[in-house]
Amino acid sequence: MSTDIYTQKAAEALETIRSKSPLIHNITNFVVMNNTANALLACGASPVMAHARTEVEEMAAIAGALVINIGTLNQKWIEAMISACRKANDMGVPVVFDPVGAGATKLRTETSMRLVSEQSIAVVRANASEAMAMTTQAGATKGVDSTHSVDQAAGAAREIARELRTVVAITGPEDLVTDGDTVLRVSGGHPLMGKVTGMGCTATALVGAFIAVEPDPMTATAGALAYLGLAGSKAALGCNGPGSFQVALLDALYNLRPEDLATCGAIIVG
Amino acid sequence: MSTDIYTQKAAEALETIRSKSPLIHNITNFVVMNNTANALLACGASPVMAHARTEVEEMAAIAGALVINIGTLNQKWIEAMISACRKANDMGVPVVFDPVGAGATKLRTETSMRLVSEQSIAVVRANASEAMAMTTQAGATKGVDSTHSVDQAAGAAREIARELRTVVAITGPEDLVTDGDTVLRVSGGHPLMGKVTGMGCTATALVGAFIAVEPDPMTATAGALAYLGLAGSKAALGCNGPGSFQVALLDALYNLRPEDLATCGAIIVG
Amino acid sequence: MSTDIYTQKAAEALETIRSKSPLIHNITNFVVMNNTANALLACGASPVMAHARTEVEEMAAIAGALVINIGTLNQKWIEAMISACRKANDMGVPVVFDPVGAGATKLRTETSMRLVSEQSIAVVRANASEAMAMTTQAGATKGVDSTHSVDQAAGAAREIARELRTVVAITGPEDLVTDGDTVLRVSGGHPLMGKVTGMGCTATALVGAFIAVEPDPMTATAGALAYLGLAGSKAALGCNGPGSFQVALLDALYNLRPEDLATCGAIIVG
Repeated sequence: MSTDIYTQKAAEALETIRSKSPLIHNITNFVVMNNTANALLACGASPVMAHARTEVEEMAAIAGALVINIGTLNQKWIEAMISACRKANDMGVPVVFDPVGAGATKLRTETSMRLVSEQSIAVVRANASEAMAMTTQAGATKGVDSTHSVDQAAGAAREIARELRTVVAITGPEDLVTDGDTVLRVSGGHPLMGKVTGMGCTATALVGAFIAVEPDPMTATAGALAYLGLAGSKAALGCNGPGSFQVALLDALYNLRPEDLATCGAIIVG
Repeated sequence: MSTDIYTQKAAEALETIRSKSPLIHNITNFVVMNNTANALLACGASPVMAHARTEVEEMAAIAGALVINIGTLNQKWIEAMISACRKANDMGVPVVFDPVGAGATKLRTETSMRLVSEQSIAVVRANASEAMAMTTQAGATKGVDSTHSVDQAAGAAREIARELRTVVAITGPEDLVTDGDTVLRVSGGHPLMGKVTGMGCTATALVGAFIAVEPDPMTATAGALAYLGLAGSKAALGCNGPGSFQVALLDALYNLRPEDLATCGAIIVG
Repeated sequence: MSTDIYTQKAAEALETIRSKSPLIHNITNFVVMNNTANALLACGASPVMAHARTEVEEMAAIAGALVINIGTLNQKWIEAMISACRKANDMGVPVVFDPVGAGATKLRTETSMRLVSEQSIAVVRANASEAMAMTTQAGATKGVDSTHSVDQAAGAAREIARELRTVVAITGPEDLVTDGDTVLRVSGGHPLMGKVTGMGCTATALVGAFIAVEPDPMTATAGALAYLGLAGSKAALGCNGPGSFQVALLDALYNLRPEDLATCGAIIVG
C-alpha cells in the first residue's frame, strides 16, 4: 500500500466508527478511565469499563475490541484481564494491550510478558522503555529509544515485534508501527501531550476503536495514531497549557473530519 | 400540583442545598467519581465517596442521601452497597440507585434487580434499556425506548415503576419521572451530553442532592433533572465540543440561579 | 531564615523539579488520581500510581517521595500503604500523608493515627477537622479551626505537630505549616478551590514533589503550598466557575515561573 492509502483507510475507519459506534471493552487503570471513555466517545465509539471476573467474559464477547491496560493492576485484575483476553480470543474479538510501567516493577514486566506470550494480542502500544522491557534481548532493542537515529529505532522496533509476535506501536515524538517487517512512521502530536496523564492510554484505546472496524492491525493502529496526532496538533493551537490542551483535545477528536485525516500525510512507510 | 409548582420547588431545593450543603454518600463507579464529586460541589452539596465494608454504614448513617451506582462493580462492592443501603433504610436516609449497564451482563442485571427488590430505594435513575432490563415484562416495557411515541413511553415507564415499586426516572432526549401513576416530563439538555461519559451518573447524583432536602421523590427527581437540563442547555452555548462542554457544564451548575430554575418551564405533568 | 528565603527556596525547588522530574509514588484515592497526576505533571514531576501489595515496595524504593492518601481506602489498600511506607522509611524516601476524612469514620481515624504513630511521616497535610481528629487532645487542638483567631490557630497547630511528632500543614483560607515550634503562614489561593474536588489532595501531592528535591520538610511544604496558592490566584482571574477554574489551574501550575514564586511574598513566619 502506498502511504496515502493508510490515511485514506484511517478516514474510512473513522467514518465507520462514527456510524456504527462499536462497543470497546476496557480493562484499564483508575487514573485514566474517565479520559479514555471520553476520548472513545469523542471519536464516536461506545466505551464500557468492566473488570469483575464474573462479567468480563460476557462483556468481551459482545465487544468490537478489548483494550487491556495495566496502569494500576493487582492480582484480581490480572485474572480478569486473562479471562477477558481468552474469551476475546475465542470470539475473534481483537485485543489491544498497553503495558504501562513494564520495566518499573516485576509485577508489571511479568504480567506484560505473560499476557503477550499466552494470549493472542493484535497490537501492543507502548513507549520505548516499556517495549524494551518486554523483550529478552535488551541489547538488540535498546535503539528504539528516541535518542537513537530513525533507522536504528525502526530496526529495534522490528526486533521487538518479531520477538513478541504481534504488531507493536512504539509512540513518542514520532510513532513507529511494525509487524516485524513493514515499519510505518506516524508524525503529528505536540509536546504538551507528554504533560497530560494518560495520553498513551488514550492512544491505546483509540487503536481499539479503529481495530474494531478495520481488520488489518497495521492500518488500524497507524490510523488511530494519525488521528490522535492530528487532533493533538490542532488542540495545541491557541491553548495555554496542559489544562486547556486536554479540553481542546476532546473537542478536536470530536470535530476532526475524515477528509482532514485522509489528507494529513502523517503516515510514511519505512 | 401544577407544573410551575415543580420548578418552584426545585428552585427552593437548590437554595437549600446551597445553604445547608447536605452530605451525599456515593458508592459509585471509578469512571465518574471525579465528575460526580465536582457536579455535587458545583450544585452546593458535600460529596463523599466511600466503599469499604468497614465504613459504609457509618458514612451512610450521617449522610443526607445515599447514591448507589453499579458502573464498575465487583462482589466486594456489591456487599458494601447492600450494607450501606440497609443502614440508610434503617436511618431514613433516602437511597437513589443507578443500574449502569443493566441488561449488558448478568452480574449487572441481577445486582440491580436484587437491590431494588430487597432494599427500599427511593428513586431509580436509568436510561430506557437499563430500566427495561430490570423488569420481568420486557414486552410491556419495550415502549419506553425513545423510538416510541410520548404516550407509549409514558405508559411503559408507569409499568416499570409499578413493577419496581419505586419512583423511576428514565432519562433521554426527554426525561420521564413516574411513581407508576403521575408522569412528569422534563425537557432541556443538549445532544453533547451523550458525548460525555457519566452524564447519567451525574444526573443520579444530583437527584441524591435534591432528595436530601426535598422529601417528595417525584418533586426532587424532576427538579434535579430540570436543573441539570437547564445547565446543559446553557453550557452548550458557545462550546466547541464535548471537552469544552464538560467544563462549561460545571460552571453552569455552579452559576445557575434558583430563579432561573423556577421559571424554566421544563417540567410538564403527563 | 527570613521570610523571603522561604519563597526563594521554593523557587529553587520548582526549578529542580522541572529539571530533574522526580518520580512521585502515589497511593491515593480513586476520585483524584487523574487530577493528582496532572498537577504533578504540570509542576514538572513524574507521577506514578501503584497500589498492589506485590509492587508498592519496589515502586516506593525508586521514588523521590511517597504520597499516601486515604480518600477511598479499604483493608487491602491499608496494607499496601503500610508496606510502601515501611520501605520508603528504610530507603530514606520522604513520606507525605493526607488523612482524608479522618474524623468521619473510625476506619479513617484509626488508619490515620496508626500510620502516623507506626511509620516515619515527614509531613501530614490536612484540613483543620482532619488534623484535630488525629489527636487525643480534642480540647487543646480545637482552635485550629478557621473560626478562631490566627494566634489561637497557630497555637493549636503547634500542639498537633508536637503530638504527631511531624511537620503538619493545616490548609484553609490561610495555610499553617509547623514542626511544633516555628509556624509558617502561607497565603494565596481562591475560594473556588473549595468548589473543586481534590484540591487538598493536589496540595499533598505537590508537597511530595517539593520534598523530593528540598530536604527540609518545613521549607518544602510551605513552598509547595505557596506555589499552589499562587497558581490558584492566577487561575481564578477570568474564569467562570469551578469547571474553567480547574482547567486554568493546571495551565497556571505549568506556566508559573520560579521568579514569580520567589517574589510572591506568600510565606510569613509566625
